[in-house]
Amino acid sequence: MQRAVPVADVKSLVLSKLERAKKASLVLAQLSTNEKNAILMKMADALEKNEGEILAANALDLKSLKVPESMKDRLMLNSSRLKAIASDVRSVALLPDPIGEKEGKEMKNGLRIAKVRVPFGVIGVIYESRPNVTADVASLCIKSGNACVLRGSASALNSNRAIAKAISSAVPEGAVELIDTEDRSAVDVLMNARGYLDIIIPRGGKELISHVVGNSKVPVIETGEGNCHIFVDESADLGMAERIIINAKCQRPSVCNAAEKVLVHERIAGEFLPILGKKLKENGVELRICEKSAKILGDVKVPFILATGQDWGTEYLDLIIGIKIVGDVDEAISHINKYNTKHTEAIITKSDANAKKFVALVDAAAIMVNASTRFTDGGQFGMGAEIGISTQKMHARGPMGLRELTTYKYIVNGNGQIRS
Amino acid sequence: MQRAVPVADVKSLVLSKLERAKKASLVLAQLSTNEKNAILMKMADALEKNEGEILAANALDLKSLKVPESMKDRLMLNSSRLKAIASDVRSVALLPDPIGEKEGKEMKNGLRIAKVRVPFGVIGVIYESRPNVTADVASLCIKSGNACVLRGSASALNSNRAIAKAISSAVPEGAVELIDTEDRSAVDVLMNARGYLDIIIPRGGKELISHVVGNSKVPVIETGEGNCHIFVDESADLGMAERIIINAKCQRPSVCNAAEKVLVHERIAGEFLPILGKKLKENGVELRICEKSAKILGDVKVPFILATGQDWGTEYLDLIIGIKIVGDVDEAISHINKYNTKHTEAIITKSDANAKKFVALVDAAAIMVNASTRFTDGGQFGMGAEIGISTQKMHARGPMGLRELTTYKYIVNGNGQIRS
Repeated sequence: MQRAVPVADVKSLVLSKLERAKKASLVLAQLSTNEKNAILMKMADALEKNEGEILAANALDLKSLKVPESMKDRLMLNSSRLKAIASDVRSVALLPDPIGEKEGKEMKNGLRIAKVRVPFGVIGVIYESRPNVTADVASLCIKSGNACVLRGSASALNSNRAIAKAISSAVPEGAVELIDTEDRSAVDVLMNARGYLDIIIPRGGKELISHVVGNSKVPVIETGEGNCHIFVDESADLGMAERIIINAKCQRPSVCNAAEKVLVHERIAGEFLPILGKKLKENGVELRICEKSAKILGDVKVPFILATGQDWGTEYLDLIIGIKIVGDVDEAISHINKYNTKHTEAIITKSDANAKKFVALVDAAAIMVNASTRFTDGGQFGMGAEIGISTQKMHARGPMGLRELTTYKYIVNGNGQIRS
Repeated sequence: MQRAVPVADVKSLVLSKLERAKKASLVLAQLSTNEKNAILMKMADALEKNEGEILAANALDLKSLKVPESMKDRLMLNSSRLKAIASDVRSVALLPDPIGEKEGKEMKNGLRIAKVRVPFGVIGVIYESRPNVTADVASLCIKSGNACVLRGSASALNSNRAIAKAISSAVPEGAVELIDTEDRSAVDVLMNARGYLDIIIPRGGKELISHVVGNSKVPVIETGEGNCHIFVDESADLGMAERIIINAKCQRPSVCNAAEKVLVHERIAGEFLPILGKKLKENGVELRICEKSAKILGDVKVPFILATGQDWGTEYLDLIIGIKIVGDVDEAISHINKYNTKHTEAIITKSDANAKKFVALVDAAAIMVNASTRFTDGGQFGMGAEIGISTQKMHARGPMGLRELTTYKYIVNGNGQIRS
């Protein structure tokens, strides 16, 4: 276990790591695609070569963890999981490199103006739970030419240290820096590190994200919270609606693109809700429903709980779903815009007009028409890998791949031009 | 004059305006390019039609202002200035509309994924001084499909009110909301208006910008501070270097893309500094220089002040320039990266290798090779108009035109796809 460290020491520890990362960012910005890919291959090899040390460190973390077995599973590494992590690192090497992409033009005065894609510099990532994130984030940052400063969860401290140690043997000095103290003041130092960190990405629960969003002086990309809705319109193919809802709720209920709410058009509620309610119960889903829905499901003896006002804004991340009957697509849109988290919203409909309205007026990173909310994902969107799903509108929206980890710079070439 | 308003009333006043803007944003998001252009034309007409009222309000502002005449000139409107403002609004109608730009692909499972450019929603702009900003910002926001909530300076309150009143007669209800109270707590309400404002752009002095950057919970785009350097390399055409430095410093010293510092390669300092020093003095520029430069300029009797450590980080916005001799391009790069504000940096050189290194390693929105720093400007970059110059790396960098006032949304069309 880590001993308590005085706050002043935590600050100087974090600052020294930020300094190292900043220096490394200048080295990384100049690497060619081939050089970066070679580093990723070396990283993957190093993870596999250090299997013994990494798994021993992970066992140490698991031993001191007092949580249910299901949560331990999230943290647990074994030989095949470590191989999968290494394999993900190698996949990143195969992705196209966005750095150096260029749009150019020549102005009348002869100035040649190019807008060139460049790395951010240093990216801070604060994350919870699974130790695979350490390798994932490091590989995406290296490929996009960025240094990274990582702050994982206390419960994975030893695993993260062992993984970061293996990675460090493969990358330029300072390119991947792990803040390996449990002291929470380290997060404050990161959030105040203007001039060192170019962006901060929090990955984790609602509390972590809102803490960082509310307190960081470094620009933040907000990720992950998903109170996702599926609206079943009057004209929907009800079989399709049922399949999509069951998939979006049950296939992996703990992730941000799982559906949390169903809105049903009042004209089809009497027909659809009994079928949907029974199917959801068969899949072990708890129903929290509006009073109108309660009348319908009460008649067919499907068990439910009446929803409270709080339910509509809650991301359950569990086998629970909220159901509400709405008058039409307009009511669905305004309910969603009031309660959603700007992640993913879906409509099931045969009406082009209603789909068009829903798509135009619902405010979210991704809008699904007749498809499951679960598709909002870097891999499913063809980005290869993602560092997270942005729920803000600035810089990047939805799944963030390599390109979203970059910025641009204007390079202007002249031959003595002055402004008149 | 505005009477003092209790804080609770300020909060409800601002919130009611935010509500109206949010509703308007849904209307604006659905307008066609032609509809938006027609609104801009009506806006320009309304500004001209209300000339009497606007100039009277402006005279009232000027009367109660106790500042030097030069500052009054910034605030002063007259008939021709108002016509110029209306003409700028009409120019925005001629710019291409970024809304609706689309990149699409079809995945193997049949999902059609489109990334479509959409407005942010509601943009908050907090600005100082000149009343033309009110019309500029409103026109750029309308054209990009955004509602805006504007908070101008107290000294232009009556002018801004009259301009906003004229604009309001031409735009959809709530599309342009002016926070017309002098009460400073209004800024706090805006900075905390998550869920209402999608971004905040502060335009003004260093203090305003750092206050907003440090305290806003709404994502911020940092603009404007420019401690811009010009590095004169060993191989520079010295005549070109002199012309560029005089242009970048003297043509308009009060703007953010004016040069504030000159770094000179030590091998040419003996030849170049006496010429440059005399020319700068002829142009009324105060010199704040390093000790090595002092020896050279002392010999030729050019008056100067020795720079203090503080000078290197200061944006003068005045006829003052800092001069420092450096050993080589590497020292120039590290000095710039230590003290610059990530706005615009220039190198004057005949060496391709040094230009390449400077361009790759200097961290700034725009890098000029053999051209004046004054070119970093939306108009000069062919964007037509700009809402400000971003000095951060997230979302937008450098001059921000219409496209930089937008975000995107993924629209996914399926026929019942679920995730396996």
